[in-house]
Amino acid sequence: MSEVTTTDLYEVTMALSYLREDMRAPATFSLFVRDLPPGRGFLVAAGLEPALDHLARFRVGRSDVQVFADALRRPAEDLEPLHGLSFDGEVRAVPEGRIVLPGEPLLEVTAPLPQAQLVETYLLCLLCHQTAVASKAARCVLAAAGRTLVDFSLRRTHGPAAGLQAARLGALVGFAGTSNVAAARRYGIPAAGTMAHSYVEAFPSEEAAFRAFARTHPGPVTLLVDTYDTDAGVATAARVLGDLGLGPGCAIRLDSGDLDAQARRARTALDAAGLADVQIIASGGLDEFAVDRLVRGGAPIDAYAVGTKVGTAADAPYLDMAYKLVEYDGRPVMKLSSAKETAPGPKQVFRGPGLRDVIGLANEEPPEGTEPLLRTMMRGGLRTEPPDTLAAARARFEADLAELPDEARRLDGPTAPVPAPSTRLTVLTTVVKHRIEAFRVTPGRPPA
Amino acid sequence: MSEVTTTDLYEVTMALSYLREDMRAPATFSLFVRDLPPGRGFLVAAGLEPALDHLARFRVGRSDVQVFADALRRPAEDLEPLHGLSFDGEVRAVPEGRIVLPGEPLLEVTAPLPQAQLVETYLLCLLCHQTAVASKAARCVLAAAGRTLVDFSLRRTHGPAAGLQAARLGALVGFAGTSNVAAARRYGIPAAGTMAHSYVEAFPSEEAAFRAFARTHPGPVTLLVDTYDTDAGVATAARVLGDLGLGPGCAIRLDSGDLDAQARRARTALDAAGLADVQIIASGGLDEFAVDRLVRGGAPIDAYAVGTKVGTAADAPYLDMAYKLVEYDGRPVMKLSSAKETAPGPKQVFRGPGLRDVIGLANEEPPEGTEPLLRTMMRGGLRTEPPDTLAAARARFEADLAELPDEARRLDGPTAPVPAPSTRLTVLTTVVKHRIEAFRVTPGRPPA
Repeated sequence: MSEVTTTDLYEVTMALSYLREDMRAPATFSLFVRDLPPGRGFLVAAGLEPALDHLARFRVGRSDVQVFADALRRPAEDLEPLHGLSFDGEVRAVPEGRIVLPGEPLLEVTAPLPQAQLVETYLLCLLCHQTAVASKAARCVLAAAGRTLVDFSLRRTHGPAAGLQAARLGALVGFAGTSNVAAARRYGIPAAGTMAHSYVEAFPSEEAAFRAFARTHPGPVTLLVDTYDTDAGVATAARVLGDLGLGPGCAIRLDSGDLDAQARRARTALDAAGLADVQIIASGGLDEFAVDRLVRGGAPIDAYAVGTKVGTAADAPYLDMAYKLVEYDGRPVMKLSSAKETAPGPKQVFRGPGLRDVIGLANEEPPEGTEPLLRTMMRGGLRTEPPDTLAAARARFEADLAELPDEARRLDGPTAPVPAPSTRLTVLTTVVKHRIEAFRVTPGRPPA
Repeated sequence: MSEVTTTDLYEVTMALSYLREDMRAPATFSLFVRDLPPGRGFLVAAGLEPALDHLARFRVGRSDVQVFADALRRPAEDLEPLHGLSFDGEVRAVPEGRIVLPGEPLLEVTAPLPQAQLVETYLLCLLCHQTAVASKAARCVLAAAGRTLVDFSLRRTHGPAAGLQAARLGALVGFAGTSNVAAARRYGIPAAGTMAHSYVEAFPSEEAAFRAFARTHPGPVTLLVDTYDTDAGVATAARVLGDLGLGPGCAIRLDSGDLDAQARRARTALDAAGLADVQIIASGGLDEFAVDRLVRGGAPIDAYAVGTKVGTAADAPYLDMAYKLVEYDGRPVMKLSSAKETAPGPKQVFRGPGLRDVIGLANEEPPEGTEPLLRTMMRGGLRTEPPDTLAAARARFEADLAELPDEARRLDGPTAPVPAPSTRLTVLTTVVKHRIEAFRVTPGRPPA
């Protein structure tokens, strides 16, 4: 399935119309999140790397033209103007891992109008999903307060490809590992995993299962202790580990029940058995709230495996993300209908200490003591920088997180800092709005 | 990226251990949803077709072995027993489109234990995601009460592959079209789409935009009328359509604001302009609740485009789906820990009229007047039936939906019918539970 045809049909109808009307002047579209979902005090920019890869590959081939024509029930020759169209525009974007706030562009595309239009759906699809999941994972990092986090989400993500991204995005914000073997390989993330309840059940006894596992996997093992009775499972695990002379690098995993109480009893039992080095891993429907309760309650849990709710960003599985035309042929553009007003013109975000951000125009000088967030990532359809690394993205996230104000870090009812518009952006918005309103009264081209 | 390595690492550690311990006896795993999420009164089985394709292709190649070995930081020769492993087991499953209830197996795998274990994660990933989305889409079908539904979700699904499935699953429950060109092609779904606000903004005026669109796309067009002022947009659309002699097959689209009020005013204006044939399409953050309010309020809307909330199954983006060992080497197995009890043994679901279902054992005779839901879909690793069609799945869904009781159809606070266990399943559960509890008191192999 060609990536080029993975698009909304209206991108095709519009692009064709622009070509037929000879509207090939440069257009700038701005991709941003209007409002944060309840329960989010910040977002983590993600999805840019695959988006740039997509744009670099983008080219409408002969077979794509045929697919477009069939979708429109028109002969392929009607769609011929689209044939060979590739992306040769400019992309300015916030690198992955940076914290972004409502209204701040994550990405701006400047390209001949048909191109800039045709790539809309795919860009939104990648950035919306990945920013939503990275932002959820980032909240787990806050909750874990330095404890180890591992991604266990693959079985519940929205398909295998979403699972691959969930592992990548976890690593991007600081997770130490993933259960997903393919993701571990592709992104160089440590792979993690032990045994399921079914493994224990397949043996005559829990002890037989633990001993068989240790035979197959010599060296440190993690044993799942809650298949039948958790306290008995811990005792069995301690006996097996003790008999085999194992300890450092080993762990037990708790996957159900009252994790706090079980972890405390398990810690006591392991310590009493001389297994102070054996760690305790918790899993089972955990999210940032559950991790936070366990961490703040002092549960002796060394590592948390989070899955379902993080990999699906369950409480906010989508963002109110838009891709809006802000300039066409040198003319700033904005949309006024209903409450969804869009500020006109290509933009830049100027980040001050404590995430006191200013949204200004792309060609403004940065205010004193601020840093521009959007960087030129493509020019003439080519990437201007080598591919980003997860380590670099993670370092950016950690640096921004250190500056995040307390009210945005809160897990319960956080509030995001509100970026201020620059004076020049405010003036431009007022001018363009007046121009459109004048045009409403007197239909026709708005005064230049 | 190999599908085989798209798995949780623990499937690999367990499968290897089973092979090393020579535990290759047949195992049956049952895949089912324990409890429905709040707001669901039924589920629509989905994901089976791609799951069967996956199993038919499944084979651990040389490079997969290397990836597994690297994930475990062990030499490839240690993983050699996995090399060449393919799936040659049996699959019994509920065909796509059927309504399923909590506790009812959607699928049962019977295969040598290592194989049955190794395919767990991928099967869960496909069936959980797709059943969640199909079930959400099905609620839109209930709300639309016969009106046309179209999938607009691609920009907000969890990646492009999830978008492809969202379109397929919409069509499976009765949507008339999708905006997703690739999905339209792949699954033979009518493609739908018109123009965005940015298109209108790129022209000197709304009227210029409408006329240009009609020039590029001769014949019936759909015009987006809410970029500036909706009533004015409707008037402009009516004028352009009238001038061009268009009418039947044309539509206007409303994407923001009070859709009910705007649709009524638009209908009046269109009718007054002699455009009674021009339809009204509504979009913009719609879900089953919004569609239901509009339909029951009598809004003159002919078609609803639903996207974000359906494609992400936003209020229930995952299901409490499990893949549990229920029999190994002829011995029924169950898990007792915490509240997550699993009934033992291979099962069948016997559907009675009004979805009064009985969950029994696979080898039971169907009770009078019932129909078994699970069919043998693979035997010896080969599909026993030709690939299913969307039309057949849709027909199954429609037939089951007609039998669905009112309390399960309700959009607000629905309650699902509760399947009854058969007498034989109840007896087996009691016997196995006693056997495990005896074993708890006297550790060792439970009495046979």
